Formats: sequence, C-alpha cells, structure tokens
Amino acid sequence: MEAPDFKEFAKAMTDYIAEYLENIRDRQVVPSVKPGYLRPLVPEQAPQQPEPWTAVMADIERVVMSGVTHWHSPRFHAYFPTANSYPAIVADMLSGAIACIGFTWIASPACTELEVVMLDWLGQMLGLPEEFLARSGGEAGGVIQGTASEATLVALLGAKSRMMQRVKEQHPEWSDTDILSKLVGYCNKQAHSSVERAGLLGGVRLKSLQPDGQRRLRGDTLRDAIDEDIRNGLIPFYVVATLGTTSSCTFDALDEIGDVCLSHGIWLHVDAAYAGSAFICPEYRYLMKGVEKADSFNFNPHKWMLVNFDCSAMWLKQPRWIVDAFNVDPLYLKHDQQGSAPDYRHWQIPLGRRFRALELWFVLRLYGVENLQKHIRRQIALAHLFEKLCTSDDRFELFEEVTMGLVCFKLKGSNEINEELLRRINGRGKIHLVPPKIDDVYFLRLAICSRFSEESDIHISWEEIKSSADEVLKSQKK
Amino acid sequence: MEAPDFKEFAKAMTDYIAEYLENIRDRQVVPSVKPGYLRPLVPEQAPQQPEPWTAVMADIERVVMSGVTHWHSPRFHAYFPTANSYPAIVADMLSGAIACIGFTWIASPACTELEVVMLDWLGQMLGLPEEFLARSGGEAGGVIQGTASEATLVALLGAKSRMMQRVKEQHPEWSDTDILSKLVGYCNKQAHSSVERAGLLGGVRLKSLQPDGQRRLRGDTLRDAIDEDIRNGLIPFYVVATLGTTSSCTFDALDEIGDVCLSHGIWLHVDAAYAGSAFICPEYRYLMKGVEKADSFNFNPHKWMLVNFDCSAMWLKQPRWIVDAFNVDPLYLKHDQQGSAPDYRHWQIPLGRRFRALELWFVLRLYGVENLQKHIRRQIALAHLFEKLCTSDDRFELFEEVTMGLVCFKLKGSNEINEELLRRINGRGKIHLVPPKIDDVYFLRLAICSRFSEESDIHISWEEIKSSADEVLKSQKK
Repeated sequence: MEAPDFKEFAKAMTDYIAEYLENIRDRQVVPSVKPGYLRPLVPEQAPQQPEPWTAVMADIERVVMSGVTHWHSPRFHAYFPTANSYPAIVADMLSGAIACIGFTWIASPACTELEVVMLDWLGQMLGLPEEFLARSGGEAGGVIQGTASEATLVALLGAKSRMMQRVKEQHPEWSDTDILSKLVGYCNKQAHSSVERAGLLGGVRLKSLQPDGQRRLRGDTLRDAIDEDIRNGLIPFYVVATLGTTSSCTFDALDEIGDVCLSHGIWLHVDAAYAGSAFICPEYRYLMKGVEKADSFNFNPHKWMLVNFDCSAMWLKQPRWIVDAFNVDPLYLKHDQQGSAPDYRHWQIPLGRRFRALELWFVLRLYGVENLQKHIRRQIALAHLFEKLCTSDDRFELFEEVTMGLVCFKLKGSNEINEELLRRINGRGKIHLVPPKIDDVYFLRLAICSRFSEESDIHISWEEIKSSADEVLKSQKK
Repeated sequence: MEAPDFKEFAKAMTDYIAEYLENIRDRQVVPSVKPGYLRPLVPEQAPQQPEPWTAVMADIERVVMSGVTHWHSPRFHAYFPTANSYPAIVADMLSGAIACIGFTWIASPACTELEVVMLDWLGQMLGLPEEFLARSGGEAGGVIQGTASEATLVALLGAKSRMMQRVKEQHPEWSDTDILSKLVGYCNKQAHSSVERAGLLGGVRLKSLQPDGQRRLRGDTLRDAIDEDIRNGLIPFYVVATLGTTSSCTFDALDEIGDVCLSHGIWLHVDAAYAGSAFICPEYRYLMKGVEKADSFNFNPHKWMLVNFDCSAMWLKQPRWIVDAFNVDPLYLKHDQQGSAPDYRHWQIPLGRRFRALELWFVLRLYGVENLQKHIRRQIALAHLFEKLCTSDDRFELFEEVTMGLVCFKLKGSNEINEELLRRINGRGKIHLVPPKIDDVYFLRLAICSRFSEESDIHISWEEIKSSADEVLKSQKK
C-alpha cells in the first residue's frame, strides 16, 4: 500500500470510526454469535495477491462488528470501563508512524522524555506526593506499564529483591531458595485476581486477608497476620492495598496499612487501577489518605481517564530495586548517556515498548484538566442517579455504598433469584452486566462505562432491569 | 473533542504521517539532543482548559520530532528493524475505536476468534507443522504476545509447571522449593538478553552454553551439559533455541537440539524473533529444520513483517501448562462458553489485551503473501549488496556469513580501531549503527531496517562508512 491509497483508506476509516462511535448505542451490546462463528466467514489462508482496501473495509461489519462486544455503548455496564477517545486514537496514529522502540533513551529520546514529563503532569493532577515524581530530582518517577497486572508484578519483584538483599546481609549463610521459601506478601481477599497471579508468577506466597464488614482491609488485620507469620519464621515483604476493588469498589484503609508497612519495612504497593482517575478531583483524595507511606502507586488512565489501552501509570519511589534486579545489559543496548535519563526497559517486564506517552499528551491537552474532572464527576453522578432509581423500588437493595461509577445492588432475597435476574437481563441482550459474589452473596454490579452515557441511558438501563425483575418475580410466584 | 473536530484532526494527521514517512530519509537519523532536552519545551503542568488540536499539531515537530530517532529511515541500521506500514496504522485506528479488552471470549468474540484464525494463516505461511495450529482441532494454537521477551517467559513458566508436576509425581516427598532449586534451563551464550532475564523473573537457573565456531548452539554441547547436570542432581526442564541471534544473526542447530530435548522430555522453545519472518519464503525454511520437535515457537511480525508493534506471534502445542498454572478465575470473568474457545488472558502475563489481530488481518490482505515475500527477499538482497561493497574493499572483512538482512563486518585490525570507526560513523550523524562484541571481538553490524530502503541508500551508507574509515585510518597513521 502506497501513500495515496493510505490517505484514502485512513480518511475513510476516520469517517467510519466517527459514525461507529456516535451511533454506538443503537448496536446490540453483546453479539449473539456462537464460538467458532468467525472461521467460516474468512478464507482458510491468507491471500497470495493484495486485495484493495475497499474489500477490507467492506468486511468490517460482516466479519468483525458482527462479533464485537461494544464496550463503549451506554448499554455496556460490565467489568470496569476501558477508555476510548478521539485524541487518543489520533495520538496512536502518530505513535504508529514514528514506530520507535523506546527501550533506551538513545533509541528515541522523545519517547522516554515525554513519558517522564507526562507522568509528572499526571502525578500532579492526582495530588501525589512530590517524592513520587521525577521533578523532585531524585531517582523516583513514573513509567507507563501495559496493565495494572504488570505493575503489581513489577512492584512485587522490586519488593522481593529489596527484601532478599536485606535478609542476605543479616543472614549471609542462607541460600536464595531458603529466603524465597520464607517470603510472604498480603492483600485484601477482595483484591484483583492479578495480585494472586503476580504471586504465582513471582514464585512467592501471597496471603489473602479477611476485610472488615465494609470489605476494607484494615491495619489491625494486617498487623496480626504479619506478627503471626514472623513468629512462625516467615519474612513479610510485600503488601498490596487496593483503592477501588473490582467486585464492589471499596477502598482499603491505606493510612492504617501504611503505618504497619512502615514499621516493618515492608514494600507497600497501591493498586488504584480503576478509582485512581477520580483523584484528579480533589474531593475524592480523602480515599487515598496515607499514600505518602507507599513505595509504589498505580492506576490506569486507560480505564477511566480517556486514554486508550494500554496505558497503566505507575510511580516508584525507588525504581533501583527493579532496575538493578533484572538489569541485563548487552553491548548493543549500551549508550553514552546511560544514567542521565531512565532506560525504561529496566522498569518493565518486556524489552520493547511503544511511544505511548503521546496518547497522554494529546488527551491531557485536548481535554484539559477541567474537562477530565467533569467526565469523572458526570459518571459518578450517573451512578448516583441509578442508585436513586434502584433504592426507590423497594424490591431492590444496595449491596455497597456508591462512591465511584459503580453501583452494586440486588433483589432482596436469595442468590438464586439474583442469578435468575442476571440471566434474564443478559439474555434479553439489551444491556450487559457481570456478577460478583462476596461471602456467598451474589449481587449485580452496574458500571458506568461509556463516555457517551447520558441520564436517559441510565433510565433505559434501569427500565430494562426493572422489567427483567418483573419477569423473574412473576415466574417465582407461579 | 467531538466528532467533527476528530475528523479534521485525524485527516490532518493522515497527511502529516504520509509526508513524514515518504520523506523520512531527509531527516537526521539520530537527534542531537542531550538528556533533559524536552522538559523546558513543555509547560510544567497539564493545561486546565482544552487546547485546539491545531496547537498540538504545531508542537509535534518542535517537541517530539526534534528528539525522535527515526527507526524507519533508510539511514537507520541499528538493532533489528521494527515494522511500520500503512495498513497496520489504519488497523490500529479501528482497534482504538472498538477499544475492547479481549481477556475472555465473551468480552469480544471477534477479538479472540480473529486472532485464532490469523495465527493459523500465519502459521501456514511459515510452513509450521499442523500440530502447532488451532485448525488441527486439538488444544494447540497461536496467540499474540506483546514481545518476544514475554513469549520466552511464558514458555519458561509453562516448562516449569510441566516439570514441577512430573517431578512431584515421582517424588511426592519433595517440596516446591526443593524442586525449584534443582531446575535448570539452557540457551546459547549468544541468545538474547531477554532469555537470561526470563530466568531471573521466573526464579530459575538458566545456563548459557558455548556455541561452536560458527556461533551455533549444537546438540552435543547441550547433551553434555544436561548429562553433567543430571549427574549433579539437577533437573533440566527448558531449552531456548535461537534462530537468528541478535548480535550476528546465526542459527542454532535446531534439529540436533530437538533430538536432545525429545530424549529428555525437556520443553524446547524456539526464539525466531527477527528471522522468523523469512520463513514465509520457502527457500529459508531449511534454517528451521527440526521445528516439529519444539513445544513452542515465536517470531515477531512486528519486526520484519510490516505489522506494527506490538505483535509477537507465539504457538504452543500444549497451552494447558500455561493456562492451568496461572488460572485464577473470579466470577466476574466467567462465562457460559468457557472451554469452547480460548480465553487468551490465561495465555499471557497481563490480563488486558488490545484487538491486535486486526493489524495482521489488514497487513496480510493488503500486501498479500507474495508482496510480503518480496519485501523479505528485497531486504536480504540489499544486505548482500552491502556485503559485496564491503568485501570489495580489502581494508574490511566480514565477521559472519550473511543469511538475512544483517551484515556483520569490521575493519581488519584491533577492537580499538573498530570502536573508533563506530564512534566516527555515529558522530557524523548521517547513519546509525550499534555494536556487538563476541568472544572479545568488537565488530559492526548493519541491519537493513527500513521498508523504504533502496539500492542507492545502501550505496550512501557504504560511502559514509568508507569515508569514516578513511578518517580513522588516516588519524592512526599520524
């Protein structure tokens, strides 16, 4: 494909995209295809000769859109949101055209340096303490990871190497495997599944602790667990505090947890993957009280801050524990400026990395902080609107206090009736939700996901849930 | 930013991108900026109010391009290529607009299913044995990883859990840490640094073995190492064979290595990150003889097959070892169709994943297999042209046989004179190369990286190297 064809194709795609997104609420939110639907729609092999771009364009609806779950539809209330915005899409075009691999500073100085500065912008927007930011002049700073899972794993690996070194100094006679078998980390039982997975990947024990009645991990619980493990000869090294759990968006008692970690020299990682975006609004920062006690902090602009996937922002006070632990430094990656700017390849699991800071730069400039705050506040207001509708119907009850853009609710009654309700809702196919279960209570969670969502959309979703409930309750009575 | 603005902005960006790429050879390949150049060029904070897109557009040259290393310039000969093509850029636009997270089948059936079929297309193009492909009907199949580093790590983790289970069955009295401390893997001393890093991340021992005189890892060397380790009570579990090493693009003796692995039940992973793309041309498949003996195979279409980063294609004969090892399955990620299509989140380190199969689909259709083969053959021919120029000057010698798009060469003489030569070349700033060192011999490597490279570009690069050599040799004589 040459430049003139590219121009036609990219412009046609631009129009298609605008059309798709502006009318997305008219599409069926989850497709009705069955597994294996796509294979018969395309040839068995790649074509030998090139096809015209119009042929590809003509297949998008037939092959792709027929099997897409529309995450950006106002009818989509599952999981947490993933971001999508016009500025981010255009930024990605430029990133794709430059197509540099920013593994070292010299490999593309702009790629590294824009990332350093954008993470400073972002950190200030959130009100993170200066000691997390590169502009503080020390080693600290931010980095873009692919996902929160990777951030959790990177922090775990940093914590592991810090504690390994400390223990080796105290017990030079212990082998690595001796120490490794004693390491233990902690998180709320309600922490994201990727925390458990990070433990599996890193080959260390992670314990899930029981939260309090409001599903928050508290300092006392953590302290008791640590004390007991120390008595049993184990070595506590890592704690993940979650701000905004996936199941019901609750917030661990960070301030209390931070004190416990500080007093034991344990690495504290904050996973604010979804809720972190809300901290750009000062009125929500009370939820991250104590953040200055953490060693690393992570949230996903690609969830709720209109930056397309993948852009998971992570700050580290002491990146050296990651950098030094996995620093393999072949000659072809060395350069004269080493040490005077971060070589981000040492801060992450993969070697290669895209020019992702462009997305942040475009989104922050083209929205401005105020519009991003408006976006967060608007989505939280829509959640409260749904909350009001839900609590005004006395067949329903809330499962959790609403603080962010998530409403956890259920029909008063058994798990079975709520399972039946969700089956009906998803079966009717007009809106889409996924269920969690906490302490054997099955409930429904409605996340505000689309930047196109308006009050009228929330009313439609509520009507849909109400009608489904009517059906369920009617069939129960029979 | 609303749709009308987006349309204007995206179309202006389209024109900018075409202009940038079509004239890329006129830009200085590596920028002359110093670390810290960018911070003074942008405000200290994100703007409160939105800026117009024209303001962002106006800053691209000043802030970004002034610090970009132009990987797609025909003057760029460093590392290995990274891909960039018009069809891939347009595909990414669509991927950004759909912006689904394909962690499970139901989360967007098209995202999973197009990936399954595209990896089948690609596997057939490479001539991979059917037992690697999903179309064979078993559990085998392909997956898109972010990078080859991740593929190497995923394979290592699969190998680890397979061997752990096997050993536990034989020695139920051994603990996990007992077994872990005995596991040992192997690779060529010339394997990529990410292999060593995978060992560090996975917490297992990896041994670098001495290659033969042509820098290839041979079966005998591997067998001797394994036998000795078994005598010493260790448990060999994983071997990485490299097809196309980073330093000099040599190929391990896969067929021999495969026999050794088969006879010991060891997981064999093939890392063909760069050279794998060449296997779409049947005349190069002799270099992957024995591939049917491997357990996993990986190459990067995002290096040499015109698919933008990140798209690292990996095939696994028994994905179950990865899937089962790190399978954490919360209720909100369960769905009714589990088991009838892959849930790719179990095949990779992160949880989230973009709709990357679109890039493969667009590139394969809009180039067609024949044009992709032409691209590979053309770049290899350009490498042979440079080889001819280089060997026609008797001050130079080749360090390695040229098989792919990489030429390893040096001035006859000391390391110092070659270090000085590279310093001159990069100092003059017209072309860019990076050096490797093997067995204490420092040499230069010229990679053909740009899809815009023509014969005349190779002559320019050669003239630049020759003039630099003139200067170096003249100053030596003084």
